[in-house]
This record gives sequence, structure tokens and C-alpha cells, in this order.
Amino acid sequence: MEKLTLIKVGGKIVEEEATLHALLDRFADLPGHKVLVHGGGRSATQLATRLGIESRMVEGRRITDAETLNVVTMVYGGLVNKRIVANLQARGLNALGLTGADMDVIRSMKRPVKEVDYGFVGDVKQVNADLLADLIAKGVVPVMAPLTHDGQGHLLNTNADTIAGETAKALARHFEVTLVYCFEKRGVLRSENDDNSVIPTIDRPSFQQLVSEGIIQGGMIPKVENSLQAVEAGVKAVIITKADAIGLAGEGTTVR
Amino acid sequence: MEKLTLIKVGGKIVEEEATLHALLDRFADLPGHKVLVHGGGRSATQLATRLGIESRMVEGRRITDAETLNVVTMVYGGLVNKRIVANLQARGLNALGLTGADMDVIRSMKRPVKEVDYGFVGDVKQVNADLLADLIAKGVVPVMAPLTHDGQGHLLNTNADTIAGETAKALARHFEVTLVYCFEKRGVLRSENDDNSVIPTIDRPSFQQLVSEGIIQGGMIPKVENSLQAVEAGVKAVIITKADAIGLAGEGTTVR
Repeated sequence: MEKLTLIKVGGKIVEEEATLHALLDRFADLPGHKVLVHGGGRSATQLATRLGIESRMVEGRRITDAETLNVVTMVYGGLVNKRIVANLQARGLNALGLTGADMDVIRSMKRPVKEVDYGFVGDVKQVNADLLADLIAKGVVPVMAPLTHDGQGHLLNTNADTIAGETAKALARHFEVTLVYCFEKRGVLRSENDDNSVIPTIDRPSFQQLVSEGIIQGGMIPKVENSLQAVEAGVKAVIITKADAIGLAGEGTTVR
Repeated sequence: MEKLTLIKVGGKIVEEEATLHALLDRFADLPGHKVLVHGGGRSATQLATRLGIESRMVEGRRITDAETLNVVTMVYGGLVNKRIVANLQARGLNALGLTGADMDVIRSMKRPVKEVDYGFVGDVKQVNADLLADLIAKGVVPVMAPLTHDGQGHLLNTNADTIAGETAKALARHFEVTLVYCFEKRGVLRSENDDNSVIPTIDRPSFQQLVSEGIIQGGMIPKVENSLQAVEAGVKAVIITKADAIGLAGEGTTVR
């Protein structure tokens, strides 16, 4: 199978001119097929503020009422996505911006109301990767915004990490997929404040050990758990690292 | 060659809930391959107003400074486009939202500054329809926003009529294309205020006659001229009609 790298970057990196261009340069230099999944939360909050719409977050997730859904549709699907696409085209990559509604790539279900009503937020139900894989094989580079649809005409705000993970799994039937989660640290760290304490590799047994020792904790537990599940579902490797280490050998934490 | 209908609708129709749904119902019922090109000017003006950005128009064209480009990217490429895509998916059509930057479908050149500096406005240079034709043959329904790119990383605001015409010409190498321009009248009228005076067909000789008689005048001259040029470039027919007459036989003015 041919190799494919799927990179997920947060909003902060793609929203600032300098870090965006550095990221896209590194992304363009990666060999093989590639896919980019992006966030855009800061720009969404900024636009909401300018429009007098309050941004409410619960555990890092945005409460998405009808007006907020319009804001994220404009920012994720329009402003951030199309700016990346145009800038990748300028680097000779045949980028194609997508939400989950486009070509029915990602269907989701509106999250049921329990303690919290998240509003128009979707949990991924199904990734249809066949047409996507076809396009990738023809040299197209999908750029995916964190929006999905429910098949009933509604767009839904969807976590970008989840989109990256589920898309990587679906593409693993067509390519040898490496999934890269960029975040603010150089990798999964042994000591929270020591950037030189990156754990080079994690597998299922060492993960259980690290959790029981309290070395991996908090928000890092679901991140690594999701990575392990992606690997168990056929993704070749998941790398957790900093955006400026994309493409550098030996950087970050590799989950296998 | 297989048949393809390319419909261009203005902003007004796609921006109001009721007319949007009626349009998409009719569009979904059309037989054969299809493409939708949409506007979105009213929503762009509304958003600009809410953001305190002045909308300046010269001869119906929006002066597009950097802030206005962000507004139209959000509204055309995000809000309007993705809402149409999700609603077509709900009707069983495999819609794919596109700007000209996506898959490099439409390259344009920033309009040179003459009497008027239109800012980030693009004049179409080239339509790359091969990948698009491939996708259409596989059942994908492109939904095109009035934005293009210059290949240097810049999005450009571009007239939706032009996008429709140029895309129709490029697709005419792959399909038997009928281009439908929806506007507020039932067709090209003999008497401006008589909706029953639709001229059923126009060709090059009758156009010259109608212009010399003063029956076709003003903004209708370039509309019909562009339609004739599309036909001369291989488009089978151009129909000028009202959105609620889409798909009805014998409605509107057919330019051949």
C-alpha cells in the first residue's frame, strides 16, 4: 500500500500568518499522499465576539446554538479552510477543502442531551472514504474542516481530533496511514514541565503501566487511548508532537 | 455524451429558507448530471454591516478590500455553500462544495486597476474541468461558490455568472451541457413590464436584430452576449428564466 500522512493541527497554528506559512511549507515537503485536518476555535471566538455572540465552552467543547453554528460554518468551512487551500495550491499541492457534508465524507449524530446540551455538535457515525481515497490516489490533498452533517440537512460542529482519528481509520483500508497529532508539547512527556522528557514510543502494555504510575494523566489519557484505538483499527502509527517537528525523524511520541 | 445541467442562481433565492428549499427540490428532481453555481451577496452585505464594514458597489460589483474578502470567503465559501451542500445531501444528491481554489478548478487574475480599483476581485483565466468531470461522472454534484484563486495563495471574489459560463464551456468537452441562468424575470422580455412577452429563442442573427430594434438593452445585452459565446464555445443551450421554472419545458428564453 502507498503511504499517507494525515496531520491534525489546532486552530492556533493555522490562524496566525507566520505559523500557518511555516506549517504549510513543512506539510508541502512531506513525501507521499497527505491529508490535513484543521481547527479554528480562536477565529470562531473572535468572530462571535465581534457579532456579540457569547462563546460558551464546557470541558473545552463549544456549546453550539444556531447562531454559533453559523459562525463555525463560516470560520471553519470558509475562512480558515479556503485560506489553507489557496496557500497549498500556491505550493503546488492540489488541495481540496472539505467538510463532512461534502461528498458525504463524514456523517454524524447530534450529541444527545445529558447533563450538558451541546447544541449542534455531532459525534461521528460513519466515514465514507472510497471517493476520498480515489481522489488522493489522483494527487488531491484533502483539507478537512471540523464540521460534519447528519444526512438530514444539518451541519454539526465536530471535534477535529475525532475527525482526524476516524478519517485515518477509514483511509487505512486504502493506504499505509501515519496519523500525526500536533499539539503544544514536543510529545507525551514523563515530566510535565520538561520538554526533554518525551516518551519515544507507547504501546498498549506500556500505556497501562504509564497510567498506573500516574505519568500519563488528565487529558493525555483519552488522547493516547484514541491513538491506540486508531492503531488497533489499522492505522500504522500515531505520532504526537509539536507542529514545528512535522516530518522530522525521531521527534515526538510514536504510538504503535 | 451524457447530459449535464448547470444552474446558476443568485443570492436572493439561496439565502431565504423557503425559496432555497423549493429550489433544491426542483434541482434534485432534474434528470442527468448537474452542477449548481450560487451567489450570496445579500448575506455578505448583512454580515459586513453587522461587523461594521461598509459595502461599496460599483455597477453591481462589490469593491473587495481585505476585510470584505474575508466576509465573502466566510459567506460564499462557508455559510451559503455548506448549507446548500448539507441540504442536497439530505435529498440524496452527493453534493461537493467548491471554490475555484479547490482542486484548482478556477484560476483567475486580480482585476487590473483602471478607473475603479475593485480590490480582491478576479477575472477568470482558466477552468480545469478534468477532475471535476471525473467526479460528476461518478455521481458527484458540484456546488460552486463565486470565489476563485490566483495560484499565488490569494482568493478572489468572482462574478457567479462568469463562473457559471466558464465552467459550462469547460464541461462542454465532457458532457452535453445546458446552462440555466436564473434571474428575477421569466426570460428575456419583449416588453420590460410584461411577463408574458418572453422571447422563446434567441440566436446570433435574432440577437443583433433585437438589439438594433432596442428590444434587448442595458444589462441584458452582456447577459445574452455571454450566453451566445457559451453556445459558440460548445454549450448546447443557455436558458434564461426564473428559478421557479427550472426543469419546466418551454419556459424562459433559450439561447442557441
